[in-house]
Amino acid sequence: MHKVIFDTDPGVDDAMALLFLERHPDIDLIGITTAFGNASIETTTRNAQYLKQQWNMSAPIAKGSAAQFDPSRVAHAFPAHIHGDDGLGNIGVPDVVDVALDPRPAHQLIIDTVKANPGEVTLVAVGRMTNLANALKAAPEIAGLVREVVIMGGAVDVPGNVTPAAEANIHGDPEAADYIMIAPWKVVVVGLDVTLKTTMSRTELGELAKSGGEAVQLLDRLSQFYIDFYDDKVADSMVVHDTCACVYVVARDLFTTRAGAVRVMTTGIGEGKTIQKPAGQRFGPSDWDGKPDQLVCVDVQADAVMKLVKETLARR
Amino acid sequence: MHKVIFDTDPGVDDAMALLFLERHPDIDLIGITTAFGNASIETTTRNAQYLKQQWNMSAPIAKGSAAQFDPSRVAHAFPAHIHGDDGLGNIGVPDVVDVALDPRPAHQLIIDTVKANPGEVTLVAVGRMTNLANALKAAPEIAGLVREVVIMGGAVDVPGNVTPAAEANIHGDPEAADYIMIAPWKVVVVGLDVTLKTTMSRTELGELAKSGGEAVQLLDRLSQFYIDFYDDKVADSMVVHDTCACVYVVARDLFTTRAGAVRVMTTGIGEGKTIQKPAGQRFGPSDWDGKPDQLVCVDVQADAVMKLVKETLARR
Repeated sequence: MHKVIFDTDPGVDDAMALLFLERHPDIDLIGITTAFGNASIETTTRNAQYLKQQWNMSAPIAKGSAAQFDPSRVAHAFPAHIHGDDGLGNIGVPDVVDVALDPRPAHQLIIDTVKANPGEVTLVAVGRMTNLANALKAAPEIAGLVREVVIMGGAVDVPGNVTPAAEANIHGDPEAADYIMIAPWKVVVVGLDVTLKTTMSRTELGELAKSGGEAVQLLDRLSQFYIDFYDDKVADSMVVHDTCACVYVVARDLFTTRAGAVRVMTTGIGEGKTIQKPAGQRFGPSDWDGKPDQLVCVDVQADAVMKLVKETLARR
Repeated sequence: MHKVIFDTDPGVDDAMALLFLERHPDIDLIGITTAFGNASIETTTRNAQYLKQQWNMSAPIAKGSAAQFDPSRVAHAFPAHIHGDDGLGNIGVPDVVDVALDPRPAHQLIIDTVKANPGEVTLVAVGRMTNLANALKAAPEIAGLVREVVIMGGAVDVPGNVTPAAEANIHGDPEAADYIMIAPWKVVVVGLDVTLKTTMSRTELGELAKSGGEAVQLLDRLSQFYIDFYDDKVADSMVVHDTCACVYVVARDLFTTRAGAVRVMTTGIGEGKTIQKPAGQRFGPSDWDGKPDQLVCVDVQADAVMKLVKETLARR
């Protein structure tokens, strides 16, 4: 079993990832922490509460930071044109959802849970890296206690999506992302290099909704707006960014990875760009020297990943 | 015929490129301008004079700038470990070579020659982009008069060589590189994405020296030090970075290109990174918007390129 804390900013593709984690038999979802990103922290937290309620989930939810790791950084606008004004495809989520929150802030839930389960917790982070960076700053010793950190974020050998340089999760809090990349724990970067290859068509999702029950019917409904947005990248389909990272936890053999230190650019026009120093290649002295090797996913068996996603979502 | 001004910092692979340009029947080499980079401007200019003398060339040589485009920028050390203390593989180039220099600075030779041959001159730049930027700044109108700018420089979808982010020619004067990328002329980026694929083995070069006469024998001699350096990337071979860019001028069909604005990072740890905004892809507002589409070489038929290089160098 993989004990997972899911750091998320639901977010349409976050919703699919959450259901995947909940339904996969080898995953024990022991915590949900919310991040801002796809929408404000108020909205993403409310959405996590809503999905927990609709899907009868047991994992505690802790609310994340409303501010970037570097509080002086100016926040970007939230992408309502991708995830809807409500962050879930404008399906009409209630303003208030009567589901209790964990009293702790997200980073404290992470710290406490990791310390209570030394060597056992996988952190799957699919929003801004703010909560992870805050946890690491408050309790650096957790780096040695986490099993693995799997993130959806970054664009290493391919263009970004927010800008030609940067992917949204990294661009939204680059200082946090750099901080977690150079920490002495094991990070796996599941970025646009691979996630753009894992897609689900509107038709496939509709079929799944028939077999997967009300939970997948909700997923189908909230994904329509997002599928419309992605029309220029994939025809009548959604890119399943966040679920792709979750699949890595249970099926890493489906991914091709490259080892090497990863840094994030925090200034200038390339702000938010993730750059890896591939291990074993020779360079002049650089800011990557002495930083831990992380794993960047550079290719993926997309068909096999999507087969697993569909099988898992269809479980009841 | 392609009228070419060659902006160069010889430099070992520059020497091969120079002989390629001189010997290719469809190229009329009408000017040589020197840049610092592989060695100091004094050394690269002396080396251009030496190669002109040894190879009985007629093109005028104009000495380039000794300082970066932004004079406040601190210069990097010259890579004597790659090109030798003399910039030509430590073969013992005389300190002074009695070959006249054009009285004009490099950027003025470029301006005058372009204006005298409107629409006809291809600028091939394989060192820092300093002279091109200086020419463009002093006479912006040349942008509309140049046929094409072909540069060896940059690393777009692959790691750099000086740092994980940056290729040497761009890293050495990033402000100049950014300036020429966003100018209203047509730039073709022949960077590490393709040049690392075009290699010549020590044995092949030795064979060529037998058929190509004294000129290629000199090339063979001065390349040995450089071949030793490249041992970690290619076994007993040299990467022919600069000649690769020259081949584009006469055999562009051997290259796969991608259109889109290109910017260069001038600050932070990614300084010198070249990032393209692929045309036709959607991004948020960015510093690439409104800048001209340039062509980035993303793949190359390396065997065909090297066949052409060998055939051309063997001409007498």
